[in-house]
Amino acid sequence: MKKFINEPDDVVAEALAGLAAAHPELRVDANERYVARSDAPRQGKVALVSGGGSGHEPLHGGFVGPGMLDAACPGEIFTSPVPDQILAATKAVDGGAGVVHVVKNYTGDVMNFQLAAELAADEGLTVETVLVDDDVAVENSTWTAGRRGTGATLLVEKIAGALAEEGGKLGEVAAIGREVNAASASFAYALTAGTTPAAGRPGFDLPADEIEVGVGIHGEPGRRREKLRPARELVRSALDAILEAKPVDRGDRVIVLVNGLGGTPLIELYLVYGEVATVLAERGIEIGRRLVGNYVTSLDMAGLSITVTRATGEMLRLFDAPVRTPGLRWGA
Amino acid sequence: MKKFINEPDDVVAEALAGLAAAHPELRVDANERYVARSDAPRQGKVALVSGGGSGHEPLHGGFVGPGMLDAACPGEIFTSPVPDQILAATKAVDGGAGVVHVVKNYTGDVMNFQLAAELAADEGLTVETVLVDDDVAVENSTWTAGRRGTGATLLVEKIAGALAEEGGKLGEVAAIGREVNAASASFAYALTAGTTPAAGRPGFDLPADEIEVGVGIHGEPGRRREKLRPARELVRSALDAILEAKPVDRGDRVIVLVNGLGGTPLIELYLVYGEVATVLAERGIEIGRRLVGNYVTSLDMAGLSITVTRATGEMLRLFDAPVRTPGLRWGA
Repeated sequence: MKKFINEPDDVVAEALAGLAAAHPELRVDANERYVARSDAPRQGKVALVSGGGSGHEPLHGGFVGPGMLDAACPGEIFTSPVPDQILAATKAVDGGAGVVHVVKNYTGDVMNFQLAAELAADEGLTVETVLVDDDVAVENSTWTAGRRGTGATLLVEKIAGALAEEGGKLGEVAAIGREVNAASASFAYALTAGTTPAAGRPGFDLPADEIEVGVGIHGEPGRRREKLRPARELVRSALDAILEAKPVDRGDRVIVLVNGLGGTPLIELYLVYGEVATVLAERGIEIGRRLVGNYVTSLDMAGLSITVTRATGEMLRLFDAPVRTPGLRWGA
Repeated sequence: MKKFINEPDDVVAEALAGLAAAHPELRVDANERYVARSDAPRQGKVALVSGGGSGHEPLHGGFVGPGMLDAACPGEIFTSPVPDQILAATKAVDGGAGVVHVVKNYTGDVMNFQLAAELAADEGLTVETVLVDDDVAVENSTWTAGRRGTGATLLVEKIAGALAEEGGKLGEVAAIGREVNAASASFAYALTAGTTPAAGRPGFDLPADEIEVGVGIHGEPGRRREKLRPARELVRSALDAILEAKPVDRGDRVIVLVNGLGGTPLIELYLVYGEVATVLAERGIEIGRRLVGNYVTSLDMAGLSITVTRATGEMLRLFDAPVRTPGLRWGA
């Protein structure tokens, strides 16, 4: 294993220290292990808290800031944050208007966020949970009951975060988060496995000419392995799966995310975006907004995911709203 | 080789098509092979044109937009753009106030930009050239006479681009670009080599426990190979080389870029930034601004570079100015 780290056990703590040094506009609590907006809590504002295992950066810590998350709780790599940590973050950013937990559908995350929400309720806080389960590659997996949460998490955080920023009520913010998730479908391919610092070797073995079709963001198996095919064919297969699971009609507008999993160069992501645009145009689907880049990653995995979200006008409006975070920034 | 591509020969053209589809605010000329602001030429504004081999994305096409470049000329992968292409871009964005060519110091780039500048002069245009040669790892290399141009290119384009945007004259824009380059030093490490689509195999072989110290952005050799060491030691060695080449005094302010070379996950870049901040704090050097991410890459190379720019107040002011490009955006 070759990585730019010191001791494997210290990676998350030291990366958080780096995040804190790089972004004075964030408050990193090294003891409680959360990243918060430095101006939190904001009285009267619904707060958004997310989190999950580390290794998916910029998700979630890189999406903390005005217009998106109020706090993020990073667990160890590919390991859920613990309930006390989530509780501490929830209390730290609660502004009296309630807190929305954005939770990717993995067994550990779901359990620990639920426990934290119960503990918060015991202390008089009101928490709503938005579960993200957009990955249509598999129905259940080694890490989940039900579909996995992946790329759509970014869109849930962006759109619900924008509504919270402009004064949306707790129920409204949670509702639009759930709508975005329900309208989203994702599908991923891996060319190589990522390597966790603790394991020191790739999470799975893949022959030199094969890919994992429908891979998860922790390297979980997908639908099958197959020989590598040209990008245009992979894009068609992914969009077939996506649009079968969540149909989009001709004339509908969508948000598209072409997301690198950490080790894929941008030139390939743009090439793939071009193929996505071609296929959706053939189907009469209008791409209203798009993001191309590394947003929800899996350490150094060479791979990518495609997310399509059937978008209402309100979702597009909130997508466009100003955001100022390390990983996503515009209009501010 | 596993990549998300179709035919190796089509990668650059197809990635440009994807860039065009993703960014309607850019004008991609597929025939002449350049990317321009869609509102170019802007009458009375000094125009900035850069370019170089592809494979370094988001550099340069991803830095076209208000506050940065007016046009970028992508060559084939790791191959200089041709003079006609540079000439076409130069003419397309010239607004009558002169054009600044930002050129990384590689033999082919220097030659082709010089020829394009002469052709432009023949047609009555005024071109100033800013040569970027910030990489202090080696004095000469397989691709250059003199030092290579790497991470500082981003800062030259940002800062000179901001001055052009606010109405700076040709001589002023070129001058601050040269000042930024003169004040900058960079140093890179590779853990693995990148693979060009045409070659189909890594550009160099590196034993499983060794790194290339001072690697170039095309995989050119650096100073030596050595066993991988902890990140904190690599950062100290890089900063020693940087500050020896371009001394920075206690109390000076700098801009720091911790730049991934394409295959390095963000969690490692933040960890490294934390180490950079620690070392510079020990030396009494204030980090005025910083960027952490993948900006000047080398396809899928796992590696990173560190750039330190001794910054004047004017440079910091221009760094902060609004910018709206695919790869760098704030305040707009």
